[in-house]
Amino acid sequence: MTKAKTAKETYSVTTEIVLPNDTNALGNLAGGRLLHWMDVAAAISAHRHCKRVVVTASVNNVSFNHPIKLASIVTLEAKVSRAFSTSMEVFIDVWVEDYVTGEKKKSNEAIYTFVAVDQNGSPLPVPEIVPESEEEKQRFASALRRRQLSLILAGKMKPEEATELKAIFGK
Amino acid sequence: MTKAKTAKETYSVTTEIVLPNDTNALGNLAGGRLLHWMDVAAAISAHRHCKRVVVTASVNNVSFNHPIKLASIVTLEAKVSRAFSTSMEVFIDVWVEDYVTGEKKKSNEAIYTFVAVDQNGSPLPVPEIVPESEEEKQRFASALRRRQLSLILAGKMKPEEATELKAIFGK
Amino acid sequence: MTKAKTAKETYSVTTEIVLPNDTNALGNLAGGRLLHWMDVAAAISAHRHCKRVVVTASVNNVSFNHPIKLASIVTLEAKVSRAFSTSMEVFIDVWVEDYVTGEKKKSNEAIYTFVAVDQNGSPLPVPEIVPESEEEKQRFASALRRRQLSLILAGKMKPEEATELKAIFGK
Amino acid sequence: MTKAKTAKETYSVTTEIVLPNDTNALGNLAGGRLLHWMDVAAAISAHRHCKRVVVTASVNNVSFNHPIKLASIVTLEAKVSRAFSTSMEVFIDVWVEDYVTGEKKKSNEAIYTFVAVDQNGSPLPVPEIVPESEEEKQRFASALRRRQLSLILAGKMKPEEATELKAIFGK
Amino acid sequence: MTKAKTAKETYSVTTEIVLPNDTNALGNLAGGRLLHWMDVAAAISAHRHCKRVVVTASVNNVSFNHPIKLASIVTLEAKVSRAFSTSMEVFIDVWVEDYVTGEKKKSNEAIYTFVAVDQNGSPLPVPEIVPESEEEKQRFASALRRRQLSLILAGKMKPEEATELKAIFGK
Amino acid sequence: MTKAKTAKETYSVTTEIVLPNDTNALGNLAGGRLLHWMDVAAAISAHRHCKRVVVTASVNNVSFNHPIKLASIVTLEAKVSRAFSTSMEVFIDVWVEDYVTGEKKKSNEAIYTFVAVDQNGSPLPVPEIVPESEEEKQRFASALRRRQLSLILAGKMKPEEATELKAIFGK
Repeated sequence: MTKAKTAKETYSVTTEIVLPNDTNALGNLAGGRLLHWMDVAAAISAHRHCKRVVVTASVNNVSFNHPIKLASIVTLEAKVSRAFSTSMEVFIDVWVEDYVTGEKKKSNEAIYTFVAVDQNGSPLPVPEIVPESEEEKQRFASALRRRQLSLILAGKMKPEEATELKAIFGK
Repeated sequence: MTKAKTAKETYSVTTEIVLPNDTNALGNLAGGRLLHWMDVAAAISAHRHCKRVVVTASVNNVSFNHPIKLASIVTLEAKVSRAFSTSMEVFIDVWVEDYVTGEKKKSNEAIYTFVAVDQNGSPLPVPEIVPESEEEKQRFASALRRRQLSLILAGKMKPEEATELKAIFGK
Repeated sequence: MTKAKTAKETYSVTTEIVLPNDTNALGNLAGGRLLHWMDVAAAISAHRHCKRVVVTASVNNVSFNHPIKLASIVTLEAKVSRAFSTSMEVFIDVWVEDYVTGEKKKSNEAIYTFVAVDQNGSPLPVPEIVPESEEEKQRFASALRRRQLSLILAGKMKPEEATELKAIFGK
Repeated sequence: MTKAKTAKETYSVTTEIVLPNDTNALGNLAGGRLLHWMDVAAAISAHRHCKRVVVTASVNNVSFNHPIKLASIVTLEAKVSRAFSTSMEVFIDVWVEDYVTGEKKKSNEAIYTFVAVDQNGSPLPVPEIVPESEEEKQRFASALRRRQLSLILAGKMKPEEATELKAIFGK
Repeated sequence: MTKAKTAKETYSVTTEIVLPNDTNALGNLAGGRLLHWMDVAAAISAHRHCKRVVVTASVNNVSFNHPIKLASIVTLEAKVSRAFSTSMEVFIDVWVEDYVTGEKKKSNEAIYTFVAVDQNGSPLPVPEIVPESEEEKQRFASALRRRQLSLILAGKMKPEEATELKAIFGK
Repeated sequence: MTKAKTAKETYSVTTEIVLPNDTNALGNLAGGRLLHWMDVAAAISAHRHCKRVVVTASVNNVSFNHPIKLASIVTLEAKVSRAFSTSMEVFIDVWVEDYVTGEKKKSNEAIYTFVAVDQNGSPLPVPEIVPESEEEKQRFASALRRRQLSLILAGKMKPEEATELKAIFGK
């Protein structure tokens, strides 16, 4: 396993134009297409962190708040927020550009988890992440709560062991 | 708003063959492609419930446990698990068929949420869901916990109001 | 060769939404796209019958009577109607859903023939089909007439040997 | 309606390379993809005949005899074989080139029927076809037999009225 | 190396219909899509000349003068204009058909260069081209000027050695 | 027309993974696919400069020196190098990442020209470019030579008026 990396070193960015076949019945970007684009952007980021083949392990939270119109320029920025033993949580921020002013507006946030695997598909250890900016530190911290929650939902952790979550819901 | 429907009436099924361009570097079905297929299957199910244009509102939980090989036959079954005022939670079960025995094995579960909208994209009310089978009843019940959790994570509900969740994490 | 199967065991169903790139100059589903979808649905059905790699051998009768509009939900149901020594005739029924009432209307019928092959492409024997429902029995019976007709058209059978067809055209 | 045209004036040719996503599990060109390519080639030919929007009406006979390998160069030649009042029968010949010698081998023959329509989808009259070469004349003559056969199969003509077919099967 | 061939023997033609997903924000054929189609047409022509795997080496001049509308029928004709030791210059002429009169209008000209390679990607010698028609002879002659120009721009030839170009720009 | 912009303000970056269907017979990225990706990246850059619909006017120089393997991560960086009255020259630099070390290697350079148009496709004036870095200044200067060369090749400028080019080839 190679040594720890900063979140910034895993940064990946991609830019897409919304074409007719990417749209739904309202003429806006279809959710499924955006999920696919986010998966590719996040996979590149996870690969940059561990330099291994990575496969999608889970999609945790994606919300679609603002419709994105045909012909929009969409920018996807991905960064590994935290690494666990063999998995990496990746945050994807999606921005849409105003066609005339060029101003970028945040359209979506998503969290995907990837696992590094060898050629047989067995998990491999990955380096740790060193968060630097304020946002990177917040996402690094909240990643632990999300992981506990997902372990509980999968029945692999008991609720009373989830110290991070108990602090929120319990008492 | 039309009257309540059974979960079974919203059932949709689709079958796909994994083609070369659907695969990742290991020759297995790419996560992003499956996310796209699940979105389409779930949208059909949500549409059958409300007979309105539906748009993806969020993806709540998707996990990818078993790699799906090139040329596999993949079946996606979707059903609305619960309807709230303008949104519908949809469960998608993904099955892969053994090439020789034909035996189907569950490969993935996913939960998507859709909103019914008018031509301007404004939310519309949707009918209620009546669960019938044991599984439908369980998913109907747990949908409320997932909704409370997502409202809390979005800052739209206070943890202490989430009675369903307090029962799990609190004492 | 494995033992005979019922037609019902070969049943496959798939559901598609008509997207912009699937349409012709009138904004309706292009014929070539539907031919492709039917081929995939029928291949899955033929595979379920014989559990072997199957390849398209011929397309016998497809008619396009009703235009299918953009954004329609299209359901394709396929079932093996009859098996010969190494080939399987598959019936595909195509249904389109009314967007508001949800009522399904039959849009097309098609008949494809598949051959089971080994890794060198050589034909392999396939199990027989046992028709059960009234429709399955009719399609099973008429499959023989279609086969005789196609052998005559290919110059592999003499018209006077086609006992099934003589009963129709002769005298 | 414009005046009669020669078959040659409706000739269309297209050339494709078989890419990975066009192949089936044996690495050969998938039947469904070839059906799609033939539909496009035939539609161009039918359009050249009538200068109207054309839609696929039926696919009559397609057989797949020789597997076509990945990376093959495939040439599709289409020509209208006969025109009826509002429909056109189109013959498509498919050729595959030997990668080293460049020799072209006939791989498939197919027959599609198209209808000329106005913007509401209503049928429009089309010009007659004047066959010139020996092959064009044969296909022109046999088109009538195919049409009678298809009318009988659709229950729109009585077998005893099908004079062309009675000459084959009867007596 | 096989013996010289005429330009005519390398002729390839392909016909495409502009579909929705091929268009840009104005509803016309997107430049990138046409570049892709031209690459495929030219590669077929280069392959027909040398019967080897060919890879794109450069794109020299492509201009887009006339917008090509959705649903247009586009014909691409390619021919090798001149062969050098291991490379082939290919001219592509693009024609668009008037929807009603069927008249073809030249829409684009492009020049691509291909290299013949073995399975390791190493260049292989290719046969010479024998131009026959007036246009073939002009393109054969001008190919040498284009080659000198491209060698100069790549810093592989000194301007004073480019005898063909000095005749134009020099005194 | 808005005021002059720096080259840096037009910068666009996109990242792609080479999938099976993007490859040629050697398993490397097909030239036509890369031409398409470069067109999209360059169009985004040109749009960011002028905030108008832009259409591809010409492709001037693209060379393919190093094969790019399946599953490679490809980064395309585009920047407007110089603006003329209604057209913009865009430089695209293509980088490929080493799968293990992550080191980026320049794979291609390309130059595309775009025109800003109104809804009727008529050209619109565009702002000037202010080059800042050393590389931006070099590309800004050489853009004038390329433009003179392309005007001469199109027969729209006499060689003796091309002062920039005479300095190279003449005397």
